[in-house]
Amino acid sequence: MPEQTMTMLNGLDLEKMYQTVEKLKAEPSLAACEFRANNNWISGGQNQSAIGDFYAAGADQKRDTPFLMQADEPPLLLGKDSAPNPVEHLLHALASCMTTSMIFHASANGARIESLRSRLAGSIDLQGFLGLSDSVRKGYQNIEVTFEVKTDATTDELARWCSFSPVYDVISRSVPVTVRIERIDA
Amino acid sequence: MPEQTMTMLNGLDLEKMYQTVEKLKAEPSLAACEFRANNNWISGGQNQSAIGDFYAAGADQKRDTPFLMQADEPPLLLGKDSAPNPVEHLLHALASCMTTSMIFHASANGARIESLRSRLAGSIDLQGFLGLSDSVRKGYQNIEVTFEVKTDATTDELARWCSFSPVYDVISRSVPVTVRIERIDA
Repeated sequence: MPEQTMTMLNGLDLEKMYQTVEKLKAEPSLAACEFRANNNWISGGQNQSAIGDFYAAGADQKRDTPFLMQADEPPLLLGKDSAPNPVEHLLHALASCMTTSMIFHASANGARIESLRSRLAGSIDLQGFLGLSDSVRKGYQNIEVTFEVKTDATTDELARWCSFSPVYDVISRSVPVTVRIERIDA
Repeated sequence: MPEQTMTMLNGLDLEKMYQTVEKLKAEPSLAACEFRANNNWISGGQNQSAIGDFYAAGADQKRDTPFLMQADEPPLLLGKDSAPNPVEHLLHALASCMTTSMIFHASANGARIESLRSRLAGSIDLQGFLGLSDSVRKGYQNIEVTFEVKTDATTDELARWCSFSPVYDVISRSVPVTVRIERIDA
């Protein structure tokens, strides 16, 4: 089906993307989404979230089986290290969202991304979480995001596209997030 | 070993907790942590993070095998629905962090938690992410967190303890987060 193949860019179906955007332009209320999670504490630092249904395109959207995600703490933080800890999950949320945003907006602009990786590092001073100091912030004090990208798109375009990320929007209004874009020769 | 058992509360080793807190009080620089994630884009909305080493207690802390976490988008958002999407991961980070914070601080205060669950819901208007409107926020517009807790601790104590959460600190300075605590009869 060569006609179908021609609408794919960076693994995204451009025709479906344009149709979705046109639909939302015509009826903006369809852009309202609600995402949901249900968490169960297990013991100590261990707990589990189930991610199932969400609301989008004017209706509840069902998943046959919810995704299960674990959290724990390393032994240094009194856990069993059976899963990433919550602040590590936050970095995954940020990395995955900036990545997806860059890919979606590149595709919408006709730019091919050949490869895309990122490294994230965030600093936290545990005195805040432990209540040992009121002057120390509980959350991340700063986060560094470094992308390695192979593409013909310009660095300015890449920086603009990843800034559409909803998770970046949430975190960067609260924590200084430094974004570096390193280019690999295409 | 009854003496060991007596130091456990809510699945946490209280003696180890006190020792950790005393160590950080004596040498606050040991409270500095860095958490890290490495993300690889796969195709379209699919990407994967590896969560391995981190810095804590004055040294790099190694994990033998990194945790791998996936992200994708549902078909409505042009993905294959092979994993939760990034904004769903953000809810898991928030749920797990508030839960762990409540458990840690309850334990430090000698309060037993018998059960603890939470439901989270966050609203996003896709017009922001898609760049269809400059006046619509890209990230969550609000997030509701509802806890169901079985414990003898007071509601005020529970609310204070979960507010020590680093992820709550990051998100609630950027997004209105409504926290409700519902009690189940102990």
